[in-house]
Amino acid sequence: MIRVPAVAREIDQARIDAYARASGDANPIHIDAAFAAATSFGGTIAHGMLVMALLAEMMHAAHGEAWVRTGALKVRFKAPTRPGDTVTASAGEPRQAAGRIDYPVQCANQRGEVLIEGRATVAAP
Amino acid sequence: MIRVPAVAREIDQARIDAYARASGDANPIHIDAAFAAATSFGGTIAHGMLVMALLAEMMHAAHGEAWVRTGALKVRFKAPTRPGDTVTASAGEPRQAAGRIDYPVQCANQRGEVLIEGRATVAAP
Repeated sequence: MIRVPAVAREIDQARIDAYARASGDANPIHIDAAFAAATSFGGTIAHGMLVMALLAEMMHAAHGEAWVRTGALKVRFKAPTRPGDTVTASAGEPRQAAGRIDYPVQCANQRGEVLIEGRATVAAP
Repeated sequence: MIRVPAVAREIDQARIDAYARASGDANPIHIDAAFAAATSFGGTIAHGMLVMALLAEMMHAAHGEAWVRTGALKVRFKAPTRPGDTVTASAGEPRQAAGRIDYPVQCANQRGEVLIEGRATVAAP
């Protein structure tokens, strides 16, 4: 089986701001501190896709073109990511069935809270 | 049912480069023209998550906090996105079951090629 090394990265407000510009998603919950403070989140949160990007980077690094051409993801958002959180994307024990490799995957923060969880699959080599 | 307006955006190389810096995913297939030209893609391609980000932006705009707190995505990558492509994220007719709203979703380019397809679900209000 292919080893899938974890990917960890700090998500600070500067990264969230840069991501908002790059993605074009300028929802104020991500970038406007005053707006975000008045919501039930109490402050800005990272774009879910910025956090999921770590899962994709991890799968891409391990599976290369096969990921780009045949990858699939099934994920659920479990908790928001706050500026300053360090997020680790990781994959569990893979299963192989029907020509695909299927990994349980998650993103968790430095307190061990699961932010995103689901499965990533890719065509078997 | 909640209306989910489509989101369209041009994905040019400058956006891909900015996304690579913001996300931290600097895989050369996305940003190194010479490297990418020598792969089977024949040129750089956008990060899959940059394309998926349009789906998230669309769902967030329509469902607000419910998307952030309860959203889920199941997607498969179907074709690569090239610099200069204009990508449209859209949602089909929703179904409601088991307390969740379930939309077929896709990202397609200006030639009508489906780049990503799947389903997005969110807790019903």
